[in-house]
Amino acid sequence: MASLELQRQIEDFYAAYVETLDDGDLEKWPDFFVEDAIYKVIPRENYARNLPLATMRYESRNMLRDRVVTIQKTILHAPRYMRHMLSNIRIHRDEGGVLDVRANYLVLQTLVEQPTTVFSTGRYLDTVVRDGNGFLFKQRLVVFDSELVPNSLIYPL
Amino acid sequence: MASLELQRQIEDFYAAYVETLDDGDLEKWPDFFVEDAIYKVIPRENYARNLPLATMRYESRNMLRDRVVTIQKTILHAPRYMRHMLSNIRIHRDEGGVLDVRANYLVLQTLVEQPTTVFSTGRYLDTVVRDGNGFLFKQRLVVFDSELVPNSLIYPL
Amino acid sequence: MASLELQRQIEDFYAAYVETLDDGDLEKWPDFFVEDAIYKVIPRENYARNLPLATMRYESRNMLRDRVVTIQKTILHAPRYMRHMLSNIRIHRDEGGVLDVRANYLVLQTLVEQPTTVFSTGRYLDTVVRDGNGFLFKQRLVVFDSELVPNSLIYPL
Repeated sequence: MASLELQRQIEDFYAAYVETLDDGDLEKWPDFFVEDAIYKVIPRENYARNLPLATMRYESRNMLRDRVVTIQKTILHAPRYMRHMLSNIRIHRDEGGVLDVRANYLVLQTLVEQPTTVFSTGRYLDTVVRDGNGFLFKQRLVVFDSELVPNSLIYPL
Repeated sequence: MASLELQRQIEDFYAAYVETLDDGDLEKWPDFFVEDAIYKVIPRENYARNLPLATMRYESRNMLRDRVVTIQKTILHAPRYMRHMLSNIRIHRDEGGVLDVRANYLVLQTLVEQPTTVFSTGRYLDTVVRDGNGFLFKQRLVVFDSELVPNSLIYPL
Repeated sequence: MASLELQRQIEDFYAAYVETLDDGDLEKWPDFFVEDAIYKVIPRENYARNLPLATMRYESRNMLRDRVVTIQKTILHAPRYMRHMLSNIRIHRDEGGVLDVRANYLVLQTLVEQPTTVFSTGRYLDTVVRDGNGFLFKQRLVVFDSELVPNSLIYPL
């Protein structure tokens, strides 16, 4: 089991990530990743069968920045609020400054004048590295439970 | 980042608040606030635009007590259970015994012989002060994501 | 309030339990319980009125093992993913190595090619005992909010 201090630091890192997304500060999102980070969103079914097909796949922080620009400038979509709930944040490995961290997520979505609905549940399978006093994602794998999500996947998870 | 000890104490304070509401011990709810506390429930839209209009606004513990009496004695409403889930509890400032704390909430509602549904998601923006060994809310701002909530907002969030 | 260390250990124990269920490692589920453990799933209504009627009642680890076999071998049911979110994990008593722990849970369910939906919310009322460096459930009482759950209750909560 990870030390109290490390667990606390990781939970705060995850909380900062969520806060950034839920506040809609999308342009800060890539700052949570190292330069050659991998960010993938993949259906649980594919992940379990070791199929490579991902719904989203970005292989650098620059690609994440491009994604942000696309969301903000290009895509036509109804305004919406996202709300992340995390649970079960666990550090599975901590070797040489590289951490394997897993967490359950639940993301809820609210469209204008609509009730809030469950948008996606799933699991983060992350590789986190230390960066000064903080952390950065070297890899974030978002393994989601329902394949019906992708159609409306606009904002990062 | 807040100390381990302080983070833990605040999380326990928030858990006690939730437990009180979810257990239906409504008459204990005002005890979580200082005497001149402000409790506001406000749509995210209004909060973002700095519009003052709140769905609920109470400006003292006595007003909260009155609210409890109103719920228990006056309002006609179908019995229901509320269930709070919290995530992302973060202490943003801690100066002179006054803390700014933020958290994501998800409240689910269950009406008799109905399935459980998402009732509200949003964010607590709180000012918390120390009180002996514990804490009290000096201000609780409940900023909720969906404007469809207010119609059925009976119990506190 | 429980010590930082104990709180952390208990949260990790609960996280391990959830991880096992959400990963579908059902055969490991009974390992979280002592041999003469009690596992009950009971509607909140019955619990509040002190009615003994439970939706599920198992009185030993062997009965839990039987349940797992039944789920895996016998019951015809559509494949589905479960996702547990926990909040408000609180140690209410810690005497002589026996702990009373309570937590809020939210379980979401995803059926194949269906959107994720809220499956059940409620509260765990647990008795936990120490076992070497870890813990085991001596009793897990799952008090759920909506009586509509039982019809489709296949996997453990």
